Amino acid sequence: MSTDSDSARREAGAEFLPRFDDRGLLTAVVLHADTNAALMVAYMNAEALALTRSTGEAHFWSRSRQALWRKGETSGNVLAVEEVLVDCDQDALVLRCRPAGPACHTGAPSCFFRKLTGDTLTPVS
Amino acid sequence: MSTDSDSARREAGAEFLPRFDDRGLLTAVVLHADTNAALMVAYMNAEALALTRSTGEAHFWSRSRQALWRKGETSGNVLAVEEVLVDCDQDALVLRCRPAGPACHTGAPSCFFRKLTGDTLTPVS
Repeated sequence: MSTDSDSARREAGAEFLPRFDDRGLLTAVVLHADTNAALMVAYMNAEALALTRSTGEAHFWSRSRQALWRKGETSGNVLAVEEVLVDCDQDALVLRCRPAGPACHTGAPSCFFRKLTGDTLTPVS
Repeated sequence: MSTDSDSARREAGAEFLPRFDDRGLLTAVVLHADTNAALMVAYMNAEALALTRSTGEAHFWSRSRQALWRKGETSGNVLAVEEVLVDCDQDALVLRCRPAGPACHTGAPSCFFRKLTGDTLTPVS
């Protein structure tokens, strides 16, 4: 159970105390290290987080496949992690990364290749 | 049930078909409209998404309070949404926003005010 003192410790301290949700996951946002452009959003369980930290390459937990996933393991488009930012309550991370190729499985540089314009999606220029 | 043709339609088309997870939520990443700096990560149910779109101000679903949440409703630090980016499988949004004040409830401009340095957290310069 989370208590108020846990919350204060997470918010104010220098301790890394990742707060996994009820599925055992953190939310991870990948931004390009140079431009800060949003590349993708994925999720990490404790093992994916540990592997990301030990290897310097982004690892995630695939919710659809229910499997550990080293980003780029088939495509070669790995993400070299340059910096990890941690949010106030430590349930979300920002990974500032240098991508070896397109971050999206569609071949787009970013998964966020469309924007909402009225009720439809249009390409991001 | 999600099918392959649903997936193709979501990825390739111009239709906005948000894919809520098993808790009825999308992941929303808030970036500063000017700098692309990561401000916060939150979650939206269908109602929060609809209100965000109709008002132009970010609304979320608080998982801890299990309640709809207009960002800034108590602090006044609302987020004016300038652009909504949608990812390939439409289960995550990027909101490029202009914040009226600090985005974090701690008073920091961003919830991501610390980075992971070795095993400890240090302030983002």
